[in-house]
Amino acid sequence: MGTALNALIERGAALMCWADPFFPDPVIPEHVKKATLEAIDVGMGSHYTMPIGNGELKKEIAKKLKEYNKMEVDPDRNIIITPGSDSGLLFAMMPFICPGDEVMVHEPSYPSNFLNPKLLGGVTIPVPLRAENNYQIDIEEFEKRLTPRTKMVLLTNPNNPTTTVFRRECLEKLAKFVVDNDLILVVDQAFEDSVFDDIEFVSAATLPGMWERTVSVFSISKGMSLSGYRVGYVVADDKIMDVMYGCAVNILGATNTASQMGAIAAISDRSFVKEYNKIFDKRRKVAYEVFNSIPGVSMAMPESSFLSWVNISKLGTSAEISKYIIEHANVVVNEGTPYGASGEGYLRVVHGCYKDDNVLYDALARIKKALTKLAEEKGVQ
Amino acid sequence: MGTALNALIERGAALMCWADPFFPDPVIPEHVKKATLEAIDVGMGSHYTMPIGNGELKKEIAKKLKEYNKMEVDPDRNIIITPGSDSGLLFAMMPFICPGDEVMVHEPSYPSNFLNPKLLGGVTIPVPLRAENNYQIDIEEFEKRLTPRTKMVLLTNPNNPTTTVFRRECLEKLAKFVVDNDLILVVDQAFEDSVFDDIEFVSAATLPGMWERTVSVFSISKGMSLSGYRVGYVVADDKIMDVMYGCAVNILGATNTASQMGAIAAISDRSFVKEYNKIFDKRRKVAYEVFNSIPGVSMAMPESSFLSWVNISKLGTSAEISKYIIEHANVVVNEGTPYGASGEGYLRVVHGCYKDDNVLYDALARIKKALTKLAEEKGVQ
Ligand SMILES: Cc1ncc(COP(=O)(O)O)c(C=O)c1O
Ligand SMILES: Cc1ncc(COP(=O)(O)O)c(C=O)c1O
Repeated sequence: MGTALNALIERGAALMCWADPFFPDPVIPEHVKKATLEAIDVGMGSHYTMPIGNGELKKEIAKKLKEYNKMEVDPDRNIIITPGSDSGLLFAMMPFICPGDEVMVHEPSYPSNFLNPKLLGGVTIPVPLRAENNYQIDIEEFEKRLTPRTKMVLLTNPNNPTTTVFRRECLEKLAKFVVDNDLILVVDQAFEDSVFDDIEFVSAATLPGMWERTVSVFSISKGMSLSGYRVGYVVADDKIMDVMYGCAVNILGATNTASQMGAIAAISDRSFVKEYNKIFDKRRKVAYEVFNSIPGVSMAMPESSFLSWVNISKLGTSAEISKYIIEHANVVVNEGTPYGASGEGYLRVVHGCYKDDNVLYDALARIKKALTKLAEEKGVQ
Repeated sequence: MGTALNALIERGAALMCWADPFFPDPVIPEHVKKATLEAIDVGMGSHYTMPIGNGELKKEIAKKLKEYNKMEVDPDRNIIITPGSDSGLLFAMMPFICPGDEVMVHEPSYPSNFLNPKLLGGVTIPVPLRAENNYQIDIEEFEKRLTPRTKMVLLTNPNNPTTTVFRRECLEKLAKFVVDNDLILVVDQAFEDSVFDDIEFVSAATLPGMWERTVSVFSISKGMSLSGYRVGYVVADDKIMDVMYGCAVNILGATNTASQMGAIAAISDRSFVKEYNKIFDKRRKVAYEVFNSIPGVSMAMPESSFLSWVNISKLGTSAEISKYIIEHANVVVNEGTPYGASGEGYLRVVHGCYKDDNVLYDALARIKKALTKLAEEKGVQ
């Protein structure tokens, strides 16, 4: 860990700045732990799997894709296992992006999305989502930015940091835009496991005309809380896969063997995800109450995951307020600005950390106390 | 695994085609196993490490670099942990290669080396190594191919498939060539752990003028036989690292947490590597005897690792003879051609597989019997 962060940890700061559920507490479901330990203990854990992934894992993923995502795929043709979805995301874009190609990235969005097109020689075109619109897609904002060099749309659904679950009607419009303009969609569904309030979750690849032009990227890091396992997967049609197969070893290398055994257990019995979601559901409501009770501070109810996207603009900038919170509440949160220009005036607060609810509630109470005092000093009501 | 390969496994074929030591038998040193299991068991295994790697692991690597490689580095500045060295290799090249840049790749060489420059929009320039020259570097072959677009030399040292350990005088000439022409060297030292006959192993980064223009790539997959752990590391000077830090998460993502704990154990106590090397040393001598006793077949004594590079050109092409060996000896070996054009007429045979020497010796005996019969039929003496 960084030395600055280390110093904060040493003085007992609460870390609400990593999208790593329950960090730093140990949380692995028993059946997942057992499968992982066994792989190491009987020794296969030291050997490579096939670079594109363990066949049994791909079968389990295909079952889950059918059940949860309504995607019917051939496990031997349409899935590549990746060492986490970070490398999976860049890998998903690589076959398509030539120097100068434009990639539309909604903002706010996961920070890597803004750098990834540039790493491939492409150009990032930020497309604003607006709080007034609940951060849903405004297709006119995409249409306005279309050029002959537009090649791809990057979508994070559900979104990080806003937790927005993109609604079917938005996605349908986006799909039509992608099809009509012969684009590629790369959709990052890392947060798909934790969607609340019975909001319908739609996998973009299932929309008309989209299967053959969508690369879907998944992860077991978030809703399954297995970040350190480093297992993700990429799903696409045969034609795209034919290209990806040819360079998977070079770009990704094989994925960790024991983790893939653990992932088989996790994906074939996902009941623990429901338990986690109960915890995240309870906590989002607490975070919502706490932040909205601070003068000058507000947040919308999170639609998914374990993140709070908090408007602190009446009190100061993202940098000022996050610094203030470290100093006066001993809590580390994320500034909003890395998530896009419109993130100024916002903080991202990970309310999914720590196992014990009370550790989290204490930290939230400290933030409330500090910011309430600050609001008072500033005369903000 | 591929379906064709699965069919071969089902009929009991011996697999001497993966550079995965002792495959498929379970071989993890006790202290490594313990550290790995503990990481899962106490639960940290489910959480991310910092994307650039566990700090303690980097300290152990720095100690090892000093002892074994004579490289003095700052663990907090000059090392990035990678999810295996395959992705590490491409990552090492990425900051330097612009479209059209030429990358010199000796051949024979690790197959990924030929594709990697192209994946980055560059051009691969194969540079021949010759059997008559013991596959050492002939600097004139490099000089002849120098153009204004030459940007990088890729070096696999020790080499796969030839097992060549590049000698100091060769490397000094190559270093001078790199410095004089303002090039970058990416050196893959995945096989450095297993060098025989007291041949001096020289890390290219230690040569005059090379530290600031060398990216060294390492792995625990080969000599340490921990392929499924997916841990590698990249070492470079501060200036290069500053660029790499900025894109490590996007390109690589974090490395598996439990594996990094295992790697700390493995790298801090490397005594097991000596034991493995005794096994590989014994086996290379057996392989050498067996292959050289077959009419029309020859190989040089391997200088490193657990690979035999076998000249079968008097009997047929690589494709013909590898197919013949599957059919008549029930053993799967590698054709020589993926390792470069001069690999035609050669086979790569992994004599490091299986724990039990006798399984290997049996397979070698079957190959000998089959090829001896073929030689007889063809009248080759
Ligand atoms: C939206 C999103 N996608 C992908 C990732 C990468 O996750 P991983 O590489 O652990 O699968 C993250 C991690 O924070 C994320 O927030
Ligand atoms: C020369 C060489 N470098 C790198 C690798 C990749 O190894 P890993 O990704 O397991 O570290 C291999 C694997 O066969 C290899 O032979």
